[in-house]
Amino acid sequence: MDQRLERIQLPALRERVVSAQQAASWITDGMAIGLSGFTRAGDAKAVPNALVERGEKAPFRIDVYSGASLGCGIDGRFAQSGIVRKRAPYQSDSLMRASINSGEVQFVDHHLSQTAEWVRGGVTGPLDFAIIEALGITEEGLLIPTTSVGNSMVFAHHADQLIIEINTAQPMELEGIHDCYEPEALGMRQPIPLVSPRDRIGRKGIPIDPAKVKGIVWNDQPDSPSPIEPPDADTNIMAGHLLDFLRGEVKAGRLREQLPPIQSGVGSVANAVLHGLIDSEFEELELYSEVLQDAVFDLLDSGKASFASASAITLSADYMERIYRNFSQYRDRLVLRPQEISNHPEIIRRLGLLSINTALEFDMYGNVNSTHVAGTKMMNGIGGSGDFGRNAQLAIFVTKSTAKNGRISCVVPFASHIDHTEHDVDVLVTEYGFADIRNLAPRERAERIIANCVHPDYRPQLQDYFTRAVAQGGHTPHVLGEALSWHELYTGEGTMIKKTL
Amino acid sequence: MDQRLERIQLPALRERVVSAQQAASWITDGMAIGLSGFTRAGDAKAVPNALVERGEKAPFRIDVYSGASLGCGIDGRFAQSGIVRKRAPYQSDSLMRASINSGEVQFVDHHLSQTAEWVRGGVTGPLDFAIIEALGITEEGLLIPTTSVGNSMVFAHHADQLIIEINTAQPMELEGIHDCYEPEALGMRQPIPLVSPRDRIGRKGIPIDPAKVKGIVWNDQPDSPSPIEPPDADTNIMAGHLLDFLRGEVKAGRLREQLPPIQSGVGSVANAVLHGLIDSEFEELELYSEVLQDAVFDLLDSGKASFASASAITLSADYMERIYRNFSQYRDRLVLRPQEISNHPEIIRRLGLLSINTALEFDMYGNVNSTHVAGTKMMNGIGGSGDFGRNAQLAIFVTKSTAKNGRISCVVPFASHIDHTEHDVDVLVTEYGFADIRNLAPRERAERIIANCVHPDYRPQLQDYFTRAVAQGGHTPHVLGEALSWHELYTGEGTMIKKTL
Ligand SMILES: CC(C)(COP(=O)(O)OP(=O)(O)OC[C@H]1O[C@@H](n2cnc3c(N)ncnc32)[C@H](O)[C@@H]1OP(=O)(O)O)[C@@H](O)C(=O)NCCC(=O)NCCS
Ligand SMILES: CC(C)(COP(=O)(O)OP(=O)(O)OC[C@H]1O[C@@H](n2cnc3c(N)ncnc32)[C@H](O)[C@@H]1OP(=O)(O)O)[C@@H](O)C(=O)NCCC(=O)NCCS
Repeated sequence: MDQRLERIQLPALRERVVSAQQAASWITDGMAIGLSGFTRAGDAKAVPNALVERGEKAPFRIDVYSGASLGCGIDGRFAQSGIVRKRAPYQSDSLMRASINSGEVQFVDHHLSQTAEWVRGGVTGPLDFAIIEALGITEEGLLIPTTSVGNSMVFAHHADQLIIEINTAQPMELEGIHDCYEPEALGMRQPIPLVSPRDRIGRKGIPIDPAKVKGIVWNDQPDSPSPIEPPDADTNIMAGHLLDFLRGEVKAGRLREQLPPIQSGVGSVANAVLHGLIDSEFEELELYSEVLQDAVFDLLDSGKASFASASAITLSADYMERIYRNFSQYRDRLVLRPQEISNHPEIIRRLGLLSINTALEFDMYGNVNSTHVAGTKMMNGIGGSGDFGRNAQLAIFVTKSTAKNGRISCVVPFASHIDHTEHDVDVLVTEYGFADIRNLAPRERAERIIANCVHPDYRPQLQDYFTRAVAQGGHTPHVLGEALSWHELYTGEGTMIKKTL
Repeated sequence: MDQRLERIQLPALRERVVSAQQAASWITDGMAIGLSGFTRAGDAKAVPNALVERGEKAPFRIDVYSGASLGCGIDGRFAQSGIVRKRAPYQSDSLMRASINSGEVQFVDHHLSQTAEWVRGGVTGPLDFAIIEALGITEEGLLIPTTSVGNSMVFAHHADQLIIEINTAQPMELEGIHDCYEPEALGMRQPIPLVSPRDRIGRKGIPIDPAKVKGIVWNDQPDSPSPIEPPDADTNIMAGHLLDFLRGEVKAGRLREQLPPIQSGVGSVANAVLHGLIDSEFEELELYSEVLQDAVFDLLDSGKASFASASAITLSADYMERIYRNFSQYRDRLVLRPQEISNHPEIIRRLGLLSINTALEFDMYGNVNSTHVAGTKMMNGIGGSGDFGRNAQLAIFVTKSTAKNGRISCVVPFASHIDHTEHDVDVLVTEYGFADIRNLAPRERAERIIANCVHPDYRPQLQDYFTRAVAQGGHTPHVLGEALSWHELYTGEGTMIKKTL
């Protein structure tokens, strides 16, 4: 017997093993599919690749839902082959980005906690297939996920049919770290009984209906590593500012020395800032996050963090190699949950999270843009930043004060796209300092942001804009004709620096 | 004995009765106070008026927190007397608005569910006094609120001292309709055990510490009536569009005929649209809202609605007279809760609300402005629209397609202020139709909004903008230099109509 068949403990399902090509052949023009995968972790790999190969020969178009971003270049191949009509709720691939920005792919940029509600509620329309990567299937009929849970549970339960990719390259020690819980249908829903990041409220795998399993496919490709940049001088300074802020909160009695559970967003900057906690006085940290990046494992290794809950584990190449080699060492300190639970407003508000996400830009009144370059071009998507920012005890957004070698100011008069409104943002951090804008009126916020966060090259021109805006009056003063002029200037002349003030 | 003293069932407190002037004298320059009052209902009246009188003679400045808007012209008198430095989290008075827009009053426009967290967490700083209107105080030491609960519970628990205004003009039948529950401190918080609008999870009054009660003041002034406009031809048409949308959802199986609990926002338009349900086929409606306006009582009277939960009752003059005369008739079908609970994301998401709020304007991509006229001048505040919009099953925003006799289009290229982002808005309704923009990419949304919602006078110029924006590309196409030009045009020329296209 093929050794691999031991991964399928339900004997009836052993007969459903097919090739990736055969499974892909079931997916036809006009269908909608739900793929496992969250920030490059635990994504279905074999069938999507086979789909692309078929699409390159004989064109068709489908709608693709996932947990979050896919790895292994799949979103790029989707984009190049032209087989994707609609894509939701998140991506981070440069080729997919190009197709989204050209209007070829209809991208629905959606709060990561909410897509499950849309699937359950029929808003996405029926999903024809769920394609889910698994470690295996237990004899009780539980599908054991791999490095992410994402939307796999809701896809498996609500898609018409199921294709399972069993990934033999993923370490078996992953079994047991998942906690699979799906809220009841609306109208019958009960409180989610989770009151600590450590709580387990579900099952160790996703209960599946064997009758819905149309095929099982082998795959032995590891997750693709994350391209994360290591901390640098600027991010170290930013981490220092964040620590200063936190110390001030402890001193003022608004936080205890035992910090609330922490969420930290995707990307290099958030990772670097989290890394800064290693050399701090804070102990016994707990993470309640959506993705665990490198820094979390450094915090666990150093003994600073004692537990981490998320929906996915996404590591750079070195870390991936090292962590999965010694995974048993981490198992008891980790839990992976459906993204609906890792990002659920109910839980985020209840736990009082300290939430740290990266902004592309913010404006002098505290509105944050996480998604659109110059208001029009999609970068990745809002991801979970809205789920966390809105409901956290502290919604902190970090960004370097400039981008593109200083030609872009990340602090602007008017954010060119708004993902997090002035009502949702508590603290802003750049390498120049932090601005705590809680309980301030817009004009007070602007003064603090201009003083503490803006790059000195842009401070005079932002101060000048603000002064002239205030002269015109209003609760949130603006010179409307100039509000977006910095972005226009960059688009036209390649820099936001104004020649004359 | 003064008959009124029977309202104070804790004998020790009877000695604390003082005049409003004396109570006001305790509040001095630099203090922060928390006032009862939510959308003109149940506001403290005597002491704030006495404060204003004192301030007119001898200036001082204080910070004023409330539930939501105050009635009885108090916010206006606050503004005129100049005694308010900071005001949060909501107001709706034209004089206060002017002081906010001139920058004299620092207004913190805050999600109504979140202010309680800030008070508990020390973000507002300590409150020196809570001034709470009550029907009376029971022998168990419960303060019985009047027509609103608002933030009264958190103010009473967390302010240093307490002044109680016993209002003898409010009907005693209000006793028993309140359900006072405060979540545990962060770090120890449990699920909120509410799974239906009818559930009672707290006590019938606010437990107070008698030692903190510094004074009790009589007041016999009724709430001020709401200036709501009755439904008109346009709002009837809008209600019709909303019903068409709901019928479509039932037909598609996404809603059951028994609709989910409904939230309906402040203002004439939301009231009128809710009123439209009376002549519909929907039965057994339940409300889970923050404020109950006239239309809710019509729905109860007609038998269409069976239960209503909120934080306040705010009625027009006629309705007020009639409803409170027969209040016993409604008592068992009503509950008033702290605004933290009426607006709690945990509950809103769990109940799967159908949420209807009024927009000032929205843009062709579905971003909604609820607060700022032409991006700069505060109207009222975000109120609970963000609490509900973000977490509801269906976030519906309604507005007439134009304002100021057609000189303003309420559908614009780029919302001049964004309170509800493209990620949060499900359905938009004007008198021209509804646009269901769920699960659509921005370009798809724009097509639908232009086709269904824009006034015909503005449709060609919005279509023209969109076409030129698309030619420039991007996920969310814009012509940056023109994005806010409609608002500029109105500010300059008094109309958004472009002379030549
Ligand atoms: C905002 C986000 C793109 C930042 O990513 P990051 O890797 O931490 O940050 P970087 O500073 O490396 O910026 C990424 C790119 O954006 C560019 N950029 C940054 N600010 C910019 C701005 N204001 N305008 C234009 N481009 C900007 C950078 O130059 C860089 O470009 P490059 O890839 O060509 O080098 C990323 O965090 C994101 O997608 N966030 C949204 C989702 C989210 O927050 N999820 C959180 C819950 S997990
Ligand atoms: C948005 C809001 C002001 C609308 O109020 P409303 O009474 O239903 O609506 P109206 O159409 O009467 O508009 C109110 C005023 O705004 C003006 N207005 C409407 N749209 C406008 C626009 N796009 N630009 C400028 N002014 C506009 C109207 O002309 C009217 O002015 P007037 O008072 O001088 O006559 C009100 O609903 C609000 O404050 N909402 C925010 C809070 C909220 O939604 N809470 C919900 C949870 S309870």
